[in-house]
Order: sequence, then structure tokens, then C-alpha cells
Amino acid sequence: MENSPQVLMKSMQDEDLIRDFHHVWHPCTQMKDHETVPPLLINRAEGIYLYDREGRRYMDVISSWWVNLFGHNHPGLNQAIKDQLDQMAHVMFAGVTHQPAIDLAEKLVQHTSPGLEKVFYSDNGSTSVEVALKMSLQYWLQTGKPDKTKFVYLKGGYHGETLGALSVCGMSLFRDKFERVLPQNLEVQGPDCLRCPFGLKRESCQAECFEPMAQALEKDHASVAGVILEPLVQGAAGMNMYPPIYLRKLEDACKAQGVHVIYDEVAVGFGRTGSLFVSEHHGLNPDFLCLSKGITSGYLPLAATLTTEKIYQAFYGDYDSFKLFIHSHSYSANPLACAAANETMRLLTEPGFIDGLKPKIKAMNAQGEVLRDLPWCGEFRQTGMIAAVELVQNQETLVPFPVEKRVGYQIFLEGLKREVYLRPLGNVVYFIPPLIIEPDQIEAMMTAAYDSINSVLGK
Amino acid sequence: MENSPQVLMKSMQDEDLIRDFHHVWHPCTQMKDHETVPPLLINRAEGIYLYDREGRRYMDVISSWWVNLFGHNHPGLNQAIKDQLDQMAHVMFAGVTHQPAIDLAEKLVQHTSPGLEKVFYSDNGSTSVEVALKMSLQYWLQTGKPDKTKFVYLKGGYHGETLGALSVCGMSLFRDKFERVLPQNLEVQGPDCLRCPFGLKRESCQAECFEPMAQALEKDHASVAGVILEPLVQGAAGMNMYPPIYLRKLEDACKAQGVHVIYDEVAVGFGRTGSLFVSEHHGLNPDFLCLSKGITSGYLPLAATLTTEKIYQAFYGDYDSFKLFIHSHSYSANPLACAAANETMRLLTEPGFIDGLKPKIKAMNAQGEVLRDLPWCGEFRQTGMIAAVELVQNQETLVPFPVEKRVGYQIFLEGLKREVYLRPLGNVVYFIPPLIIEPDQIEAMMTAAYDSINSVLGK
Repeated sequence: MENSPQVLMKSMQDEDLIRDFHHVWHPCTQMKDHETVPPLLINRAEGIYLYDREGRRYMDVISSWWVNLFGHNHPGLNQAIKDQLDQMAHVMFAGVTHQPAIDLAEKLVQHTSPGLEKVFYSDNGSTSVEVALKMSLQYWLQTGKPDKTKFVYLKGGYHGETLGALSVCGMSLFRDKFERVLPQNLEVQGPDCLRCPFGLKRESCQAECFEPMAQALEKDHASVAGVILEPLVQGAAGMNMYPPIYLRKLEDACKAQGVHVIYDEVAVGFGRTGSLFVSEHHGLNPDFLCLSKGITSGYLPLAATLTTEKIYQAFYGDYDSFKLFIHSHSYSANPLACAAANETMRLLTEPGFIDGLKPKIKAMNAQGEVLRDLPWCGEFRQTGMIAAVELVQNQETLVPFPVEKRVGYQIFLEGLKREVYLRPLGNVVYFIPPLIIEPDQIEAMMTAAYDSINSVLGK
Repeated sequence: MENSPQVLMKSMQDEDLIRDFHHVWHPCTQMKDHETVPPLLINRAEGIYLYDREGRRYMDVISSWWVNLFGHNHPGLNQAIKDQLDQMAHVMFAGVTHQPAIDLAEKLVQHTSPGLEKVFYSDNGSTSVEVALKMSLQYWLQTGKPDKTKFVYLKGGYHGETLGALSVCGMSLFRDKFERVLPQNLEVQGPDCLRCPFGLKRESCQAECFEPMAQALEKDHASVAGVILEPLVQGAAGMNMYPPIYLRKLEDACKAQGVHVIYDEVAVGFGRTGSLFVSEHHGLNPDFLCLSKGITSGYLPLAATLTTEKIYQAFYGDYDSFKLFIHSHSYSANPLACAAANETMRLLTEPGFIDGLKPKIKAMNAQGEVLRDLPWCGEFRQTGMIAAVELVQNQETLVPFPVEKRVGYQIFLEGLKREVYLRPLGNVVYFIPPLIIEPDQIEAMMTAAYDSINSVLGK
């Protein structure tokens, strides 16, 4: 009874937090946790910091769920939205088009892999994936291969949480309560570089772990529409990083077997890995590319699914052929969000910007040394502006801490005391800061993480 | 070859439209149609009008896919967004909360059915439905009824187009290309008042058509988690309208059989029917209520799924019970969208506003007379601020025009000539204008529709 909502309500001082507790159901949150630790009530944000009403600040080291690129309250982004607002906040996107959507589509096509020519807008990462899956299914149906109805996904893969997106999720945490209703797809063991079963290193291996994927495609290609994966970094799995050679092997195999390649760059696109897009940077040629999160610099919901002229043409024809792609969301290509996205692309492609990330990436690596020293450090890994430390009970055996210990949650609480908003994924403490973070802030971030981990696990 | 893209590209005068044609894939559009009729390039909007760059205006009689309530470029809404923008565009919504989301949740709870206490945010109508379906499934799993895994939906029902939402869609147009991968649910014949098989009138019937639903629930309740439907108006089906008694029967049956009631008020909520919410107005008590579209007055993507304390409590417990609801979108509860929604709720609940719709509703009905006179009018129907005329080949037999004739599309093109943006659903020409429309504008809208229909079908 001591921690019941009633008791909490009496002890809570802040009326707004009480109202929050009464009426708001937060995502991915056991709401009972808020009996003892209420959510931060953030009312202002500036640069890489969030501020509560008492003026306490927290460094947003995970970019508010990996979305923020140029800091909060960015003058250029604010102005772009205000300017668009004075023209038109929104208009439907069927039978109508508008400048912000056209400009953005052209820029996305220009900066992604050469084969990607068409842009289909939606609202979030999940819908960008649903669109890709549906387009792939309908493509095969309309090109004489109706049996291609399954998707291959990687263990540890995450592509959103609507039921279609969840059906290609390789993490039981997200899918097990809904398993009974999910469309049936094929899970394949993918890269696991920290615990490589071949005893190899990601820096020098030949993606020997591609074998299960090769076999699955060989065996099931007749029923497989596409393979979906997060290139280079499996985010929700704990920033699981793997080498690009895996992707090259995948593209070769998919081409050989007649299977679509769907890259989900929702988390890794827009500069996160130190290049604008992973797939373009590595010369890859997917059939579909899913984008969201950073697309508006963390300002507004927007997503895009890019695809090729070849896919598009399978839907193109006289109306009465009924080949069109039927999928819509009311706010598709929302002009305010497109305006933010156009400013985002302008900022990202300013001469020197991407190059300017290099010293920051180096600083993250150098400062990461402090984490490597932890006796609980299974691995400190990094891909561009994404870094993570995987905590283990024993450095030799790499045995993880049990889930019940909630090591990550304890570290989160310690982080708050040190003015950083960490939100570990299980036992993985990670950093995916706004790209504008400065070297001294990187040092503060790593130090705070080190101290937070230490205070939970001891030295 | 005459209408090929190449020819079009040469004939198109507007460079931006050429760029649109090259790179943008529009939703629910056979892109080949744009070879002959390019999309409108709208760059400004004001009140109930959209303007193209040449200054031509189009009355937005369908509120940009049913989202706009207070007209475009509304000073109060613009200001609310700008004010919020100067504080904070966005912050993650796990572990964090903010004033705009708290205020909005409280207002939604206050103005919807008494039993609805908790608000879960997402980005669009599809996700609001996916959230309701997932919560319902997990509720039954966690309360000892894991066999309740199916949903009942109505023929003609529409609830979005992500695969989960599509699995409860009762229109083959949207689902038939994806049928092979959809979760299996139960379709039930619902109300069809224009062609009532019992020969009754919706004004005086006792929802005799409830029988198939009653039987389905009787027979399958052990495997049914919930029933989902659009209360009073099935939108995408062609503004198919039915009486509230159907909903009262449904609630009684669902209560008796232990099945959740999910109302999708994405299209009909926020004043459209002449009351703030259909379910609250009619004293209904759903287990879930899905809201989107009008929630931000047509400014920004946002959605909410409301539910009861009882449902919420089935997820509430110690962390290690793993009962929490795991579902997230990066931009959940986006503060800019919440700011627009708070201003929307303020405007909707201003004293006299809802009452002030009555003369407009009357005017729509009176002006609708002109459409009733058409020899092609199968029915002119209206529910509050939503009106529709269903065109038929023969008023006696009510035989519809064949799909291939594209009657609706022809009327759309004629509408453009008359400065109205109609977008018929098949043979149904409908009106769902911004709530601020004035009587003289209603007259202009109906007259333009009459003339457009006449010019396609003849008198």
C-alpha cells in the first residue's frame, strides 16, 4: 500500500505531475515506476539541453529518441517552420502538391543511392516500413510472383511497432504479447560481433555470419518478397554494430535470388554514422529506403519511403488496371514538417558540415577510453556519432547482467543526478547526441556516464 | 505514346510540377492520371480556400481529407504553434512529460465519455487504431483470456492502412492486394440504410440489421477481443450513415459477451457531427476511443487512443511483472502538435461554438435540396456537418454507376473548374467542410457540386 497511487498523489508536490499521472499513459513505460520516480517535466529546450521548470538542465545525449540533429530551439529551423506556417500549415496530398514536399523529395533523391527515384511520404518510422512492405508485396503480386509474401528479418532487428512493422521485428520484448496475430515472416540470425561465433573481429572479418541469410534466401526465395534490416547499427537491439561487408553480401544474394532489399535508415540516416546516409556512402543499392527520425531534425513527425523507378513502374498504368498503390495518411507530406526537413537537408549539406563531424567522432572515441576502463565494459563500440558501452558481469565470459537487476534503469537514475538524460537499452549505455555537440560536452557526457555506471556497479 | 510521361514532360509548363512528377509518389493516386491532369500546386491557404501560385482559389469542401476545422492560416492556431516553438519543438515522451501533452490529455478526458481516463499518444489514425488493438489483445492475455485474439469489424469499415489497421478494414479496395498477409479477423455485415434489406428507415428503425453482429458475438465471443467501428458515419465507405441505436445495441451485446468496444472517431470526432464527440454525446461507453484528424484542426499529425482505468490497471504493476505496454513512436505527443490540439479544444469548447453549428447544419440540409432534385440522386444524407449525395443510375433500383465510368473523378475535374475541391468516394459526392464555413459559402459549395454533377451526368 505504501507505494500506491493514492500515497503518491499525496506526496507529489507538483500539480501537473499529478495530472500527468492521472491521465497520460506514456510509451514504453511501466507507469508504476512513476509512483516513485515521476517523469521529468520538461518545459524548455535549448541546444543539447532540456530544462525543467525549476531550471535544472539535462544533456539530451540520446537526442530525444535519436531524432534531434541540430539542437533544440534552432533559429533556422524555427524560422523555416514559422515561414511555412504563415503560408499554409497543411493541405491534403492526393490531387494536390506543394513546394516543400517537391523540394524535399528532390533533395532526398539527390543524396541517397542513385537508383532511388521516388519518394512516398508518411508520418513515422513504422509507417515508412509498412509502406515498403506493402509496396514490395504488391510489386510481386503485379509482376506475376504472388507467392512472394514473406519477409526475412534479422534477430535483433527493430522496424517499428505497428503490427506489420512488428512482424519483421527480431526482438521478443516488442513482439511476444502480439505473436499470435502477427503475419508470419522469417527470422534469421544476423551479426553478433561482440560474441562472434566465429571468433572474428568486425574490423577484419568477411561477414562469415552471413551464412544463415544465404541459406534462407537459397531455400525460401520463391516465397520471400524482401529482406529488411538496419544497415550497420541495430539500434533497439543495443546499438549492435556490424561491418558493411554484410550488406554487400546481402545485396549480391538478393539480386541473385530475386528478392527486394529494404534498408531501414530511420535511426542511422541523416548524418548519424558520420555520412549522410549509410547506403549511399557505401555504394549500396536498395530497392527501398525507409527514413524518419532525423528527417526534421527532431522537430515534427515525418517519414519517407524511397524506391526505384522499376518498382514504381509496376504500379503505373491506366486507372482501370487498378495497379495503383493505395495507402494514405491524412497528414502525408505535412508542409510544416517538410519545411523543417528542407532546412535539415540544407544544414546537413552545407559545405564542411559532414566533414566537421570527424573531430567529434574522434573525440567520442577518445573520451570513450574512460568507459573501456570499466571492469564491467564488455565492449565500447562506435559507428560515427553513435557510441555504446555494453556492460557485462564478467569481461572474460561476457555474461550479461540479468534483466531483473534493471542495471540500465539504475544508471538512468544516476545519470539524472549528473545532468545527463541517458536511457540505456537493457545493459547497453549508449550515446547518440545531437550532431552539434562540442568536444567539451562530449567529455562531460562520457564522464557523467562513467560516474553513473560506477555508482551503480562499483569500480 | 501520346500520353506518355515524356510527352507530358514536354507539355508541362511548370518546372515544379515536372519535379513533382519525377520524384513524388502521391498517396491513393494512379500516378499516370497526372500525365493528363497534374496535381494542383497549392502554395497558400486561407480560411476555407486553397490558392495556387496563379492565385486561383479552390474551396476546401473536404477539409483537406477531413482534418481542417477552423480554416487555414488561423491566427490563434498559428500563434499557439509559434509560442510553443519558442519554448520547445519536441522532446521524447518516455521518462519525460510536458505541459502541452498533460493539458491536452486532461481536456480529452474531460470531454469524452466518463469512463475514459487515460490517453496514449501516437501520430495518426492508423497508429491510434493499432494501439487500441494491441492494448485489447494484451489486456486479454494478461487477464487470463489469451484465446481472445480476433476483432470484429463491419463491412464498409475503414480504420487506416498499416497492416494491423487494414486487418479490420471492411473494404476490399484497401485490403485485397494484401489479403494474404493480414491477421485474420471477422467481418460482419453492418448497417446499409440506403438499401436497407428490411425496408426500414434510419430515422425510425430499431437497428434490425444488428442481427448478424449479435450472432457473431454470440457464436465467437470466446475468441473475440473487441469490435471496432466508426460510430454513426462510415467515412471511406461513402459517408454511409446509420442511427445511434445500432451503437447502443452493440454496447449491450459486447458487455454481455465480454468483448471490448473500440470506437474510431478519427473522422467523426471534434465537432463534425454537430457534437464534440459522437460517443460522449450519445451517452456511449467504449473501452477504447481513437482520435486523430481534427485533433490539431488540420495543422499537424497527432493521434490519441483513450481507454478506461480498468484496462490501464491490467498493465499496471511492478516492473518485473513485465505487464507494461510496449509501443512507441519517436514523436509521440509532439509538443507543437499538442499546442495546436490545445488551441483546437479551446476553440471547440468556447461557449456557443457547438450550438453555433446548428444553423450551418440546417443550411447544409436546406441547400442540399438542390442535390435531391437530381435524377441521379439515390440519397442525400447528412449527419451534422457531414453531408453526401450518392449518385445512382436509376433512382428506383438504386443501381450504382460502374466503377470504370469514374463518375466521381469526372465530377472532381468539373468541380475544379468551379473553384471547389471535391474528391468523391466512388459515386458518392460528399461535403465535410471546415466548421467555420458560412451559409453563403455552403450555398456556393452545393451549387458548384450540383453544376459539376450535371455537367458530367446531364440533368
